[in-house]
Amino acid sequence: MKRTVFFISDGTAITAETLGHSLITQFPGVEFDQVRMPFVDDLEKCGAAVKAINQASQRDGAPAIVFNTIVDESLCSVINASEGVMLDLFATFLSPMEQALGVAHEPTVGRAHGVANLDRYEHRMEATNYAMNHDDGVSVDFRDADLVLVGVSRCGKTPTCLYMALHFGVRAANYPLTPEDLDEMRLPSFLRRYRHKLVGLSIDPERLSQIRQTRKPDSRYASPRQCRMEVDAAANLLRMEGITTFETTHASIEEIASRVLLQLGMQREMF
Amino acid sequence: MKRTVFFISDGTAITAETLGHSLITQFPGVEFDQVRMPFVDDLEKCGAAVKAINQASQRDGAPAIVFNTIVDESLCSVINASEGVMLDLFATFLSPMEQALGVAHEPTVGRAHGVANLDRYEHRMEATNYAMNHDDGVSVDFRDADLVLVGVSRCGKTPTCLYMALHFGVRAANYPLTPEDLDEMRLPSFLRRYRHKLVGLSIDPERLSQIRQTRKPDSRYASPRQCRMEVDAAANLLRMEGITTFETTHASIEEIASRVLLQLGMQREMF
Repeated sequence: MKRTVFFISDGTAITAETLGHSLITQFPGVEFDQVRMPFVDDLEKCGAAVKAINQASQRDGAPAIVFNTIVDESLCSVINASEGVMLDLFATFLSPMEQALGVAHEPTVGRAHGVANLDRYEHRMEATNYAMNHDDGVSVDFRDADLVLVGVSRCGKTPTCLYMALHFGVRAANYPLTPEDLDEMRLPSFLRRYRHKLVGLSIDPERLSQIRQTRKPDSRYASPRQCRMEVDAAANLLRMEGITTFETTHASIEEIASRVLLQLGMQREMF
Repeated sequence: MKRTVFFISDGTAITAETLGHSLITQFPGVEFDQVRMPFVDDLEKCGAAVKAINQASQRDGAPAIVFNTIVDESLCSVINASEGVMLDLFATFLSPMEQALGVAHEPTVGRAHGVANLDRYEHRMEATNYAMNHDDGVSVDFRDADLVLVGVSRCGKTPTCLYMALHFGVRAANYPLTPEDLDEMRLPSFLRRYRHKLVGLSIDPERLSQIRQTRKPDSRYASPRQCRMEVDAAANLLRMEGITTFETTHASIEEIASRVLLQLGMQREMF
């Protein structure tokens, strides 16, 4: 069974798609054809959206499902007149929120993923630059870091740092434990002094070998033996130093980032 | 008026927070205290959540608002017994979806932001590495790029590329137009040959000067005059070459990324 879902918004459609993804993952037996329609903010674009919804519904032989986060009610009513099944975030939740808060909402478009607060936004950009400049041992001056991820090369540090910087404005640095560090069996002094900011990442050695293999095929670096040695030595070192370590093998960037922030007690508002 | 909102989930709580943010931005007159509670996946953690909700409600003198994306119904019922006002994504939308699809949902935790599909996930990681390695002119071999952002230094190319790679698995490269490129008034040949992949970013010269000022204070690079010259020359060059250009001054990363993908007709499923 194939069904079409639309993510429609007057802004980026990121909220609509996030909401929609969470819900469609609960129906693993259905194959979904996904269509994103951002910036649907006038009657003409609404008309085009309705046409697309109706065409998909006819093609599938069943109504398309529409996740809608358009704020303007008159534009929403245009979309509502389509053949699709409408799941409308604002229509559904604004009224219980108004009741709970005792005030009416003030409709404004694109606030969720726009530049709401310039200071906060600059902090976010600054954190992203910080993560870029403190990636992979490029700079090991961690005095301004909010946190430092440590682990062997290719265990998932870089994307996790970028994610935390982009979405939580966290100055996330990372440092790859080198075979030399592992031989010494102690953290380099530039890390030790920031021990309270350190979080370890670990990975299954076989998985690590696969990942390194695509990067440097048939190298010693990618060999299962080398990977096993490094992963074991890193685990010992981090345990000895009392550093909390998370397993990344089956975790997504979002899961690792959420666990790291929870571990460090960092309550940052998400972008 | 101050009110506490909770984002509670058995997974990362990213969906709950995204949903919640979109809704609370519609109430600009209310000050919200935001509490994220990810990985609430057993009775003990639910009990702790209820306690926190009740304490916040008593402190505020009004019930906390709870955005809940816990899948398990028995855990949800524990949270429901708190003093908070419950806005429950799954309880609200699963039933209309089941009706529309004609099948029951299969409850599974953490699918929305987990590693659902290893191939897709690896593609995402690969795209992130690609963006890191094709940032800021480091490599100008764009043959494998899905797109290349061009514009003057510090106009927003890097964070936008990282965002597109992390969230859409897009191999997004970028190239900073140098004063030398602008003097020549033509694109370097390694860019010209991929003209169909190019998108320009532009920025207000005064804003650019502020941004560069924090990076290299009192430099020629940051001077309003230099910024104005570069921005004007880049605009002329991109217009002459027929390259669509987006203004970044008042746009967020998410907005720029969404517009770029829409422009290039790239329908990628979001991570």
